Amino acid sequence: MDLYQLTMAQAYLELDMHAPAVFELFVRKLPKTRLFLVAAGLEQIVDFIESLRFTSEEIEFLSSLGLFRTPFLRYLESARFTGSVHAMAEGTPFFADEPILRVTGPILEAQLLESRVLNIGHFQSLIASKAARCVLAANGRQLVDFGLRRAHEADAGVLAARAAFIAGFDATATVESGRRFGIPLSGTVAHSFIEAHDSEDTAFRNFLKSSCGATTLLVDTYDTERAIRRVIDIEHELASQGAPSSVRAIRIDSGDLAAQARMARGMFDAARCEHIKIVLSGGLDERSIEGLVAAGAPVDVFGVGTALDTSSDAPALDMAYKLQEYAGKPRRKKSVGKATWPGAKQVFRQYDDSGKAVLDRICLADEHGEGQPLLSQVLREGRRIGPLPSLPEIQRHCRREVEALPPALHRLEEGASTFSVLISDAVRTLATAVDAAN
Amino acid sequence: MDLYQLTMAQAYLELDMHAPAVFELFVRKLPKTRLFLVAAGLEQIVDFIESLRFTSEEIEFLSSLGLFRTPFLRYLESARFTGSVHAMAEGTPFFADEPILRVTGPILEAQLLESRVLNIGHFQSLIASKAARCVLAANGRQLVDFGLRRAHEADAGVLAARAAFIAGFDATATVESGRRFGIPLSGTVAHSFIEAHDSEDTAFRNFLKSSCGATTLLVDTYDTERAIRRVIDIEHELASQGAPSSVRAIRIDSGDLAAQARMARGMFDAARCEHIKIVLSGGLDERSIEGLVAAGAPVDVFGVGTALDTSSDAPALDMAYKLQEYAGKPRRKKSVGKATWPGAKQVFRQYDDSGKAVLDRICLADEHGEGQPLLSQVLREGRRIGPLPSLPEIQRHCRREVEALPPALHRLEEGASTFSVLISDAVRTLATAVDAAN
Repeated sequence: MDLYQLTMAQAYLELDMHAPAVFELFVRKLPKTRLFLVAAGLEQIVDFIESLRFTSEEIEFLSSLGLFRTPFLRYLESARFTGSVHAMAEGTPFFADEPILRVTGPILEAQLLESRVLNIGHFQSLIASKAARCVLAANGRQLVDFGLRRAHEADAGVLAARAAFIAGFDATATVESGRRFGIPLSGTVAHSFIEAHDSEDTAFRNFLKSSCGATTLLVDTYDTERAIRRVIDIEHELASQGAPSSVRAIRIDSGDLAAQARMARGMFDAARCEHIKIVLSGGLDERSIEGLVAAGAPVDVFGVGTALDTSSDAPALDMAYKLQEYAGKPRRKKSVGKATWPGAKQVFRQYDDSGKAVLDRICLADEHGEGQPLLSQVLREGRRIGPLPSLPEIQRHCRREVEALPPALHRLEEGASTFSVLISDAVRTLATAVDAAN
Repeated sequence: MDLYQLTMAQAYLELDMHAPAVFELFVRKLPKTRLFLVAAGLEQIVDFIESLRFTSEEIEFLSSLGLFRTPFLRYLESARFTGSVHAMAEGTPFFADEPILRVTGPILEAQLLESRVLNIGHFQSLIASKAARCVLAANGRQLVDFGLRRAHEADAGVLAARAAFIAGFDATATVESGRRFGIPLSGTVAHSFIEAHDSEDTAFRNFLKSSCGATTLLVDTYDTERAIRRVIDIEHELASQGAPSSVRAIRIDSGDLAAQARMARGMFDAARCEHIKIVLSGGLDERSIEGLVAAGAPVDVFGVGTALDTSSDAPALDMAYKLQEYAGKPRRKKSVGKATWPGAKQVFRQYDDSGKAVLDRICLADEHGEGQPLLSQVLREGRRIGPLPSLPEIQRHCRREVEALPPALHRLEEGASTFSVLISDAVRTLATAVDAAN
């Protein structure tokens, strides 16, 4: 929570300002390397809102700051969010100015949600949007999240795996994400394991011996070609003993990945090891994945780490949580370059007969727009209305909705998104009326 | 934790590989917009290592994966780190290839630390390094962290405040960082508060009334000049009633910040409101801060958010945790572009007579180098040796050590760092010997 949320909340309490407010979460402008974004994080936002409580230790700390008076500190002891929330389903593609979440409730309560709702929704939407590009670039090949180590602290590592899975990743190396969200886990072996042995050959054999089932070997510690020959020798030995194959894949993590993947594929195929798959990793992002696919590199799995978990080319979205209405009156700030559309809003997406999305229209919440309304109610009187979709359901929804976008949006080019997002006349009229009043 | 840490650990257990290993944490290459980095996160790394435990729930989950056998799962029940750790003091500037942390212990245990130690050390060093540039740019003006909302999830928001404070920030808006680390808190008011009132004038008066002590008003919601006149009128009214000043500062968050700050300063000074300070925010980073300072903008406090908490121009460091020695033998990978210096190492920093740092030399841990050794022992047999420095002590150490860097490193220019980092002959000789052996 940011300090000003609390100082403002105290003022609302003392001023008896308890009328309902509408806040919306939206992105002002897309990064130039994003033609669409993907909404994610709703489940964690709902968890947060439902469980928002101030512990006595926290209230004691706030009391020690000398900024808060007793009635407000008392209020915090039983503070709950009692309002409603409407939101886009997780996995829905969205564009600039479109609310992905709308909070309606007493202004004090809605204000207390600001920073954390932003913090959750921003991060997972950021990562899902990046991951969606990797999925488009990989064009059907498998993708695994390897990013925990350079994610921004623990929460980011654990939740990046969730956001990436929503956008179509197949698995993660982060164990906690598997435990918490049921995401399939995938792992290989590190250079340190190879280096800890006096020979690479012994390292390979030892790792295979200790693995339950077939596994992946890392071949670029010293000399990739020599390592691949070792893998083939081991597979041939096992075959001659009638043992099942134990090498599922090899991983190459450095150097010219396309050339080495081709070399590996050629050597494996020539040695009747067609079953051994090729995993590539090492600083990959959607552009290098696209390049490897275009070059026809024979790759089965891409491991993506830092670029995914930090959304490295665009590590933040211009996302805001803004007051749109208070006490039944629309509100709008006019700050240069940061003006917002007032009023409680809904987004309608129109599809053509073939199921392709053709345009979005941002309307007032009580307008009857054409097409599919994208926001639906998830919380009423502070409690969730029903179960939220499962992660595999969200992943399927995301795949379907990203596929429904115009093909121009499936490319990795830079530039402004060409998707039409219209503002309804009613919203424009309201904005003019609000400006005239201030 | 990454899955491969556990599969490798199982292999080490089954192979009876319990000899001591040395792993080091270091950055391969600085981002082109960093002339130096700042080590941070040691306290959280030490906390993590001391408290590393596997809960029965976690072990049950691992068991369900079908990848681990009973002896290893049993081992995890009582797994502890029993080795030692040497580290650079938090707040120490460092350069490429220099270990900032060295872990010595049974290879299985040291392997279990990998991803989380990287995850902690990477993030806080990333943010402290970014914050140090903001501090240099602000040239004595105050800096406040406003970044929670766009930090990558909760942990990142809370710990970014800590890392920024280490590098010289004065305060944060993130309440939890104040509670957990004792960092001074600072907050203002949001546009939503102004908009929730039917007039800006009422909003100002209401916020002042409810604040304990003097506070900050936000003046750019509608028309900055008009808002500043309102602030002056309110101050004059209070003065005429003999009341103390209640406006400590104003905040401007949009538009041409330099021009508006000058306008505000001029209006306040002309109206005998010299005591009102000016806070600027809104997408600031070290370059815009430097620009505002160079333009002579009369600013007292900069609020820095997204650019700080995401280190937006360089959202990741090329940091790695690598095996350098096992069973008394140095280790090194030769992967293209990722070769490492083998052996347990120490960094010596040499200063000239005026106290300026002149060069670093990376030596073997048992070499007697010239100058100040930068790594010292913090953990022995898995327990901390003594108390770690307090946050204010770390901040003072950082200020002193950044000031001691050559003036060329105090600039924001892009390019390779000009600081000399030498590799000792003993390290080079060892690398050659290791290569010859593989």
